[in-house]
Amino acid sequence: MNHLALLTDLYQLTMMQGYFRQGFQRREGVFDLFFRALPGGSGYALAAGLEQAIAYLEDLSFSAADIAYLRGLSLFDENFLAALYALRFHGDVDALPEGSPVFPHEPILRVKAPLLEAQLIETALLNIVNHQTLIATKASRIVAAAGGGAVMEFGLRRAQGPDAGIFGSRAAYIGGCISTSNVLAGQRFGIPVAGTMAHSWVQSFKREIDAFRAYAEVFPEHSLFLVDTYNVLRSGVPNAIQAGLELEAQGHHFLGIRIDSGDLAYLSREARKMLDAAGLTKALIVGSNDLNEDTIWSIRNQDAAIDTWGVGTHLITSQGASALGGVYKLAAEGVDGYFEPRMKVSENTTKITNPGIKKIVRFYDRQGKALADLIALEEESFPEDQPLTIFDALQGWKQKTLHDFTTRDLLVPVFRAGQCVYARPELPDIQQYARRELDTLWDEVKRLTNPHTYIVDLSAKLMALRERQLLKINAEMSVPNENNLAERLKS
Amino acid sequence: MNHLALLTDLYQLTMMQGYFRQGFQRREGVFDLFFRALPGGSGYALAAGLEQAIAYLEDLSFSAADIAYLRGLSLFDENFLAALYALRFHGDVDALPEGSPVFPHEPILRVKAPLLEAQLIETALLNIVNHQTLIATKASRIVAAAGGGAVMEFGLRRAQGPDAGIFGSRAAYIGGCISTSNVLAGQRFGIPVAGTMAHSWVQSFKREIDAFRAYAEVFPEHSLFLVDTYNVLRSGVPNAIQAGLELEAQGHHFLGIRIDSGDLAYLSREARKMLDAAGLTKALIVGSNDLNEDTIWSIRNQDAAIDTWGVGTHLITSQGASALGGVYKLAAEGVDGYFEPRMKVSENTTKITNPGIKKIVRFYDRQGKALADLIALEEESFPEDQPLTIFDALQGWKQKTLHDFTTRDLLVPVFRAGQCVYARPELPDIQQYARRELDTLWDEVKRLTNPHTYIVDLSAKLMALRERQLLKINAEMSVPNENNLAERLKS
Repeated sequence: MNHLALLTDLYQLTMMQGYFRQGFQRREGVFDLFFRALPGGSGYALAAGLEQAIAYLEDLSFSAADIAYLRGLSLFDENFLAALYALRFHGDVDALPEGSPVFPHEPILRVKAPLLEAQLIETALLNIVNHQTLIATKASRIVAAAGGGAVMEFGLRRAQGPDAGIFGSRAAYIGGCISTSNVLAGQRFGIPVAGTMAHSWVQSFKREIDAFRAYAEVFPEHSLFLVDTYNVLRSGVPNAIQAGLELEAQGHHFLGIRIDSGDLAYLSREARKMLDAAGLTKALIVGSNDLNEDTIWSIRNQDAAIDTWGVGTHLITSQGASALGGVYKLAAEGVDGYFEPRMKVSENTTKITNPGIKKIVRFYDRQGKALADLIALEEESFPEDQPLTIFDALQGWKQKTLHDFTTRDLLVPVFRAGQCVYARPELPDIQQYARRELDTLWDEVKRLTNPHTYIVDLSAKLMALRERQLLKINAEMSVPNENNLAERLKS
Repeated sequence: MNHLALLTDLYQLTMMQGYFRQGFQRREGVFDLFFRALPGGSGYALAAGLEQAIAYLEDLSFSAADIAYLRGLSLFDENFLAALYALRFHGDVDALPEGSPVFPHEPILRVKAPLLEAQLIETALLNIVNHQTLIATKASRIVAAAGGGAVMEFGLRRAQGPDAGIFGSRAAYIGGCISTSNVLAGQRFGIPVAGTMAHSWVQSFKREIDAFRAYAEVFPEHSLFLVDTYNVLRSGVPNAIQAGLELEAQGHHFLGIRIDSGDLAYLSREARKMLDAAGLTKALIVGSNDLNEDTIWSIRNQDAAIDTWGVGTHLITSQGASALGGVYKLAAEGVDGYFEPRMKVSENTTKITNPGIKKIVRFYDRQGKALADLIALEEESFPEDQPLTIFDALQGWKQKTLHDFTTRDLLVPVFRAGQCVYARPELPDIQQYARRELDTLWDEVKRLTNPHTYIVDLSAKLMALRERQLLKINAEMSVPNENNLAERLKS
């Protein structure tokens, strides 16, 4: 995440100059980064990308060349450019740890910073968090579909550019994939790398068996033969068995085969029989070929004999839902630590935002299962020894009383006054954390199709604040100050 | 595209070590990079990404740290690692210029290189070309849907990571967008940048009119007011008109308004009336809000008064078809310049590849409209003064005789013996080239929904070669050499 200060929308910079000219330098804003809808019919999302967001904020500064480029746009004045050149991030950030299940309208990241800084960083933060959260979510669904089977991530060649492959691998690992084919992601993040041969290897030899033998000679302990270059059952599997038996005869462990085309349910069952009949009962069968959670689920339900799934395109691009619609909205504004709530109203009611400085409280039952989340104001607390009735923000008749619960505040401090105060966990720990966190969700919420909607309500105080703000904005809008023009035009 | 030698699949490196141990150092391969199906129901794709592919190949080398990482995987021997450390790209590349319309099975890139190098670069070339071709194609469809209206690319915040935003902007510009919001893409590629204000700007002022006036003061010539923070017709447009009239009274040109929510057809028509009634007939109306080619097309067909479209998520991620399924397949192999054709057969017939060293010939009528493409062998020529009958490769009864045509070979030399021999065009020239090239396609091929299928046939010679190769492979497979094992297992 080096040198990405210009990775922002132009309007952030024009607004910043506007704030600068207005003398808003001391003004601070609180922004929530959240999404309004879960991607691809999922019942949850897995937060990811925080580590890269931190790296971006720590590195944030404009180079002389950046300033020169901006000067060339003839939009900015020298005072503002000088302020940009000196700009560093001085704000506070609170965030959900990576691997946390997260739901619509919950702040994944909350930024409290001088308005100019907070505005600048919106685009890059959204870019990073939207992408990795999307892919981690997709991966965790694919891993769930595979049941006990392992999932290897293979998607680099179809990813939307190098970063999408690199950070996509990282997010896929958080979501539960065991490995990546992407060597650069392996180097950068320590993700286990996996892969053996492509069709071109097999084609480079006169006979398929020669290709397998040649590979076995070089990698006797890592021989996973690709069996569909010519004909899986007539040629590929028999040749793999031949070469596999030769390996075993030399005292090596034969890893197995990969099937990359044809009907994976049928072919894997037949291949399993052939391998077993040859005594190669421990040889793995890897299945690949344009898989996603739905195909894996249905292939498994036809008694496929696939041990490990290789998933590429659908995983690395979240095919079918290729973007998380994360937004970054002003929730409060202030000076010298005193903040006033702000909200955005909209013709689309789901686009109305929640005002104030907020937190997320997750309620658990005594078995540790998550019951519901409340989005609440920062200063609120919910004693664990008192029943609590929660209400659906839009449908007030939907209510639920929680008893005998434990609570957890989900947002953790990440930056204080521009300094990172967060002990960044190692990637394998994030993966483990995600697995444990997903265990706290009911299976119904994790169902791949038409999942149960997890309850995310607003606290009574936040709801009241929201109502007050809405009334205030409506009152201000109906004051006929400048709007008399509208009346004039209409009449 | 700096330092991406490890941006490859692990199996490329294991296969390379296999080739190395087999003594295949002198062996060369010819690989075709092509896709099998057009993305998202499009009738064509626009090739893009060549400039980054060139940069990648020119920069290709492993650092000492890369080698150390690979050594740590305990898969590779020191001789091979030494060879990797010395590796540079020495091959030939021929490619379609960026902005060329391209169709299934046509090589966008053809690589002729030592097998080890050709194998290594597969993944990164696919990553780069798949991504940019996908986005350029999507952009050109969106631009087509907008008719005469301009399209601004706004997608960075929803892109799949930083590169997806940066190179996606570039591809979108090739596809005909007039600008990007992405400042870094502007800096790197000289793409015009655009953007004015977000809802947070408007919210930062007590009254909407104050927000507009404050912006107008700072950017009197670049004031495009966002009018949907509160209520478009009751508040946003009237306030914008007020501030716009004030600007015009001061001798400035008022740019216009942007509507980002609600029904764009209705709101834009009403806003147009209000602007016109106030004498602001030149004020532009920009529409945005989760647009794609279909929504733009239907909004336009309801007489929307939108001059310019801001498109983000759908464009930058090619929502609905988030990957181009480009592949990279061995077509020939040889030593010292003598090549033998190679092909991959498959249980899926559409996955059977075309053997041999090939080119693409486009046939035009005398009006310059493209009639059909032939994928042919490199040495073939098609005299323009003789009628030519072409056949569908899979459905031989489909044939067509071309008369009075001109031809063009589409692939151009890009690398010779590792040296770039291609004069890389400037980005605006690529955009212009794409526009001209799209003009050579019939509108029926460019129709957004259910387009006419452009004819891409194989030359008679290539078809004959394909048949011979298929027979040969089948004959070899039925020889009961190693396959007697299969028989044994089945009996």
